[in-house]
Amino acid sequence: MEIKVLHNILEVNDRAADEVRATLAAAGVTVFNLIGGPGTGKTSLLEQVIPRLLDRRRVAVLEGDIATTRDAERIGALGVPVVQLLTGGGCHLEAVLIAKALEEFDLDALDIVFVENVGNIACPAEFDLGETAKVAVLSVTEGDDKPAKYPLLFHEMSALVLGKTDLLSLTDFDPERFERDVRGLNPKAPIFPLSCRTGEGVDSFAQWLEALHEGREPAVRPRADGDSSW
Amino acid sequence: MEIKVLHNILEVNDRAADEVRATLAAAGVTVFNLIGGPGTGKTSLLEQVIPRLLDRRRVAVLEGDIATTRDAERIGALGVPVVQLLTGGGCHLEAVLIAKALEEFDLDALDIVFVENVGNIACPAEFDLGETAKVAVLSVTEGDDKPAKYPLLFHEMSALVLGKTDLLSLTDFDPERFERDVRGLNPKAPIFPLSCRTGEGVDSFAQWLEALHEGREPAVRPRADGDSSW
Repeated sequence: MEIKVLHNILEVNDRAADEVRATLAAAGVTVFNLIGGPGTGKTSLLEQVIPRLLDRRRVAVLEGDIATTRDAERIGALGVPVVQLLTGGGCHLEAVLIAKALEEFDLDALDIVFVENVGNIACPAEFDLGETAKVAVLSVTEGDDKPAKYPLLFHEMSALVLGKTDLLSLTDFDPERFERDVRGLNPKAPIFPLSCRTGEGVDSFAQWLEALHEGREPAVRPRADGDSSW
Repeated sequence: MEIKVLHNILEVNDRAADEVRATLAAAGVTVFNLIGGPGTGKTSLLEQVIPRLLDRRRVAVLEGDIATTRDAERIGALGVPVVQLLTGGGCHLEAVLIAKALEEFDLDALDIVFVENVGNIACPAEFDLGETAKVAVLSVTEGDDKPAKYPLLFHEMSALVLGKTDLLSLTDFDPERFERDVRGLNPKAPIFPLSCRTGEGVDSFAQWLEALHEGREPAVRPRADGDSSW
């Protein structure tokens, strides 16, 4: 009985996700589902990236949180349409919520929608939202062992943002160990080390977002051996 | 139907938690359930605190993770009994797992058991493990807005560890705003600012753990206005 119900929950979600995907395809809208732990810097990343896109792209944001509208207020200050999704305790977003929220936008007037998931690197990775790509967001202050310990997200992601690199020298984060673990789970997704504080690395990530939106080959940032830029 | 099943899951958990509580009470063992996001520093906290307790207290650890035995290896290096609980995808620990794991220990030979929950500040707070106290673990690099955004944990906790204070000056973390939000959810739980890197503040937290184990009034650290020690 329990298995059947869980099965139905995922089935209902997958059906809603397929509908979201079809709606987005018809409107030519690209959706990035940002997944990362609490305080990893997802909202700060949007605050950095969105202004870099706005002269060429029409952007909107769905802000997922358990409580408060604080993140939506921060995004609203950028002058882009934003809807706050409150799960009221739920630890992840589901596709049916996304479908409902997208009705608030004129999709024909948009190019890119960012979904900021609830701060959690476990559950959100299990739910297909109909997004174009999942982007994992992690920061160096969280440690290099997170991919190995929370493997699903790093397996599912299309790209990985590694933030707070301005604090790297103050941590024990080992970039080589980190990359080895990531590559064991996901051989191809590009890794974007960046700092929302200094702005370093944000342009590369913004270029990847646009390349994916345009259907060009994702701009994979090759990481040659001995590259010590982060 | 779905509601009934969810109801049963929580009922089953609560029954197992009551059994754990009775077992622990009979053995005189105190259990601290550490709940915090991924990379907030839960394992590092144990690495700092356990050596401070070992000359007077017999300690063991249950390490909860989705995958890998890395944390159990770090704790094992301290020379205390440790069991790694792997959820295999699950985003939180449940009481039935704790009951099973405690069978691995000789409880009469223990004083304090730490449970390190899966790195997640949403779901684990919903599950009673039969613990003596929930301890919330957060770090300044995650931002001062987390209590308001993930209220359940901060409502349920008996104490709050605020880690990585050595990085405070490099962040936008506002201690006053943080404390105001915490107090709105939980007027009494003591807050322990500390740094596992410098060791500052760890002794106060260790003293609180022992006071709770001994049944003395928890050593609430008064935070007078204008206290700028963190």
